[in-house]
Amino acid sequence: MISIEQALEHVIQYAVPKPAQSVPLEKSLGHVLWEDIFSDLDAPPHDQSLVDGYAVRSTDFCPRAIRAQEGSGNVELEILEEVTAGNIPTCRVESGRTIRVMTGVHVPEGADAVVMLEDVLWQREAGLSLGVARFATREVVAGQNIMPQATSLHRGQRVLPSRKRVRPAEIALLAQVGRTDVRVFGRPQVALLPTGDELVDVGFLPGPGKIRNSNGPMLAACARQFGAEVLDLGIGRDDREPLRAVMAQGLSADVLVISGGVSAGTLDLVPEVLEDLGVRQVFHKVNLKPGKPLWFGVADGVQGDREAGGSTLVFGLPGNPVSSFVCFQLFVSMALRRLGGEDLREPVAPRPSARLARPFEVRGDRVTYAPARLDWTEAGAVLDPVVWHGSGDIRGLVDANALAIFPEGGGHYEPGERILYHPLD
Amino acid sequence: MISIEQALEHVIQYAVPKPAQSVPLEKSLGHVLWEDIFSDLDAPPHDQSLVDGYAVRSTDFCPRAIRAQEGSGNVELEILEEVTAGNIPTCRVESGRTIRVMTGVHVPEGADAVVMLEDVLWQREAGLSLGVARFATREVVAGQNIMPQATSLHRGQRVLPSRKRVRPAEIALLAQVGRTDVRVFGRPQVALLPTGDELVDVGFLPGPGKIRNSNGPMLAACARQFGAEVLDLGIGRDDREPLRAVMAQGLSADVLVISGGVSAGTLDLVPEVLEDLGVRQVFHKVNLKPGKPLWFGVADGVQGDREAGGSTLVFGLPGNPVSSFVCFQLFVSMALRRLGGEDLREPVAPRPSARLARPFEVRGDRVTYAPARLDWTEAGAVLDPVVWHGSGDIRGLVDANALAIFPEGGGHYEPGERILYHPLD
Repeated sequence: MISIEQALEHVIQYAVPKPAQSVPLEKSLGHVLWEDIFSDLDAPPHDQSLVDGYAVRSTDFCPRAIRAQEGSGNVELEILEEVTAGNIPTCRVESGRTIRVMTGVHVPEGADAVVMLEDVLWQREAGLSLGVARFATREVVAGQNIMPQATSLHRGQRVLPSRKRVRPAEIALLAQVGRTDVRVFGRPQVALLPTGDELVDVGFLPGPGKIRNSNGPMLAACARQFGAEVLDLGIGRDDREPLRAVMAQGLSADVLVISGGVSAGTLDLVPEVLEDLGVRQVFHKVNLKPGKPLWFGVADGVQGDREAGGSTLVFGLPGNPVSSFVCFQLFVSMALRRLGGEDLREPVAPRPSARLARPFEVRGDRVTYAPARLDWTEAGAVLDPVVWHGSGDIRGLVDANALAIFPEGGGHYEPGERILYHPLD
Repeated sequence: MISIEQALEHVIQYAVPKPAQSVPLEKSLGHVLWEDIFSDLDAPPHDQSLVDGYAVRSTDFCPRAIRAQEGSGNVELEILEEVTAGNIPTCRVESGRTIRVMTGVHVPEGADAVVMLEDVLWQREAGLSLGVARFATREVVAGQNIMPQATSLHRGQRVLPSRKRVRPAEIALLAQVGRTDVRVFGRPQVALLPTGDELVDVGFLPGPGKIRNSNGPMLAACARQFGAEVLDLGIGRDDREPLRAVMAQGLSADVLVISGGVSAGTLDLVPEVLEDLGVRQVFHKVNLKPGKPLWFGVADGVQGDREAGGSTLVFGLPGNPVSSFVCFQLFVSMALRRLGGEDLREPVAPRPSARLARPFEVRGDRVTYAPARLDWTEAGAVLDPVVWHGSGDIRGLVDANALAIFPEGGGHYEPGERILYHPLD
């Protein structure tokens, strides 16, 4: 029996990122960048107004300049032109003059500050086509409300590194630098095979000794959440030859996930049949509750039309649904993230923690992942293990949004103790 | 100018959940349940073994019973039969006898405990077809490794409430209770209209005064992240009649999201044209930085073939990409969640918080949402505002995985201060 960390190291070591593919920008969400992204422009492309307002010379607002003005003591400047979004200034701002500019517009030559629209009264005046701007403020400093050219991006700069997952912000940046298409890692394909003579399809009422196949739909949903494509192999029966045939089919995918048949029971054929198929066992059994019987192996070169370079990773998950779920969240998810291009070779980031809400008793020797409810309160994050009747109890899992992690050895935990957790939502 | 909380109340008040639709179980991921879900069975359907092992009478392990045995002092029991998954016991366990059972199997009559396989040596013995089980343990208590009938679910029980979002665990439970189809709230449709004469399509190099349309692809990705279907209306130009036509088209969706054209600038036509189209303004301007110019309105009865009951919600987001992004995350997302069926009428849950990583200066009067990097360290969650050059700077946003929330009034914040945040990933 190996530790969770050792098991993860094996999984990450054998998971080779998928080959690159080019996708249109709008299909890139959730993919991982295969290429570094460079900017083809400066942003902003010129000194730019950050507000709707008036481009001015700040020296027109120094005390001497203001004293030189007649009347109210407010600075008044003649408006030369108005520049709306998408257009560029045609005049230069000389002393005593201003240009009305919209947000994002090129700051006109001669101007070194922009005063917000709200601080200016626009007066029509005879003989002047655009009238006069009367400023309610005198506090104008050089550079105000101006974003200098290339503050955000400069041409040729690497703006996104490869291996970064594409979220809406990355899509905005890719659009900004003109990428209509982008090279990303492909999505992994996962073949799913729940096994067991006790399983009946969801649409049937289970007879004596039978249960419905809940692992199949659940694992498909887990795989989709991690961006994988799902190949549904149906239910595998505890019968060597048909099992061998359907498993061989599953080896055409990047990952074959089997549930059931990996404990020490009489009909737990899975490891044997996999060995027959040339799948090499990497580990069997992990110091984890629930999920101890986890089996992991690798098939080199047995796959048919798969792209060169990759092996098929094979996970034999325990048949109990919660064990199956926990093993997917901990191990299969990491394989999918790595196949999808994420760089997981760095030491895994520290886990989040929260205060335990109530006393909790951990039985058994293994590291325990207990379904729990994580809530934020005024006092911070609080973790409350849900009522849970063991690895067959799916009902407990639906109340959880985290797995509370208790170290090996079991024991008693007091409210307020800081507990690490694995978030689920 | 209203507060963020007031704005949210308005948005939630006007967002009416979509009508129910029936979807196959495998398509239900991410939807919100419209119906309560009841169990059609007990789970487990009978007292069930939690392990692969031997079903025994615990009284066979009491000290007197052990003394009565000859030889080593180990309890030895004759094996009556073996029951594999999917099958049911045919014999009763009498004293001195045991039945080998796999995980999930019905506990045979007469037995009241199961001993794990690992604690038992299986010996073949002449004259006995299945041989003898020799127990390495003497500690056997009534009920051990048995899950009593209906511990997890009982027939007729409400196992999932309506308004709950479907995750993989919910799919497992729906499968367990036989739901091949399930009634869920429909997905909202979002029409997207970035506006502005300065916008050019992503595939072009922007000329003087122009920028690429990054808001369109970004907002589409945001909408998809919240489970919406996207109707892309292209780029709206600052020209009243075409703008009116394309906005009218957008009002066929549940939500029309416009970006740009809502500030106080000369060509900010959006509010006027919307009013022409019968869209009633609910609010304009929110005490938020970035995002102050946010416009929100409702079109009652102007939509053509939409299902009865709903109005079209119209968001006019500021044109700057980061402002647009923040307004989507704060307001449009809540509308989509509510349209998708989530119950948001309860007081909003307390926000998470983290320690500030470094000194930070907040300028301006408004509540500020600053892009920040959230990391978990040994000492807990740490929030580090990213280098960010304002609402036009998308580059800053890609380094962030949270928005740090600073209250109105601005000021200086010290490292270690506890800061609320809005998670982004």
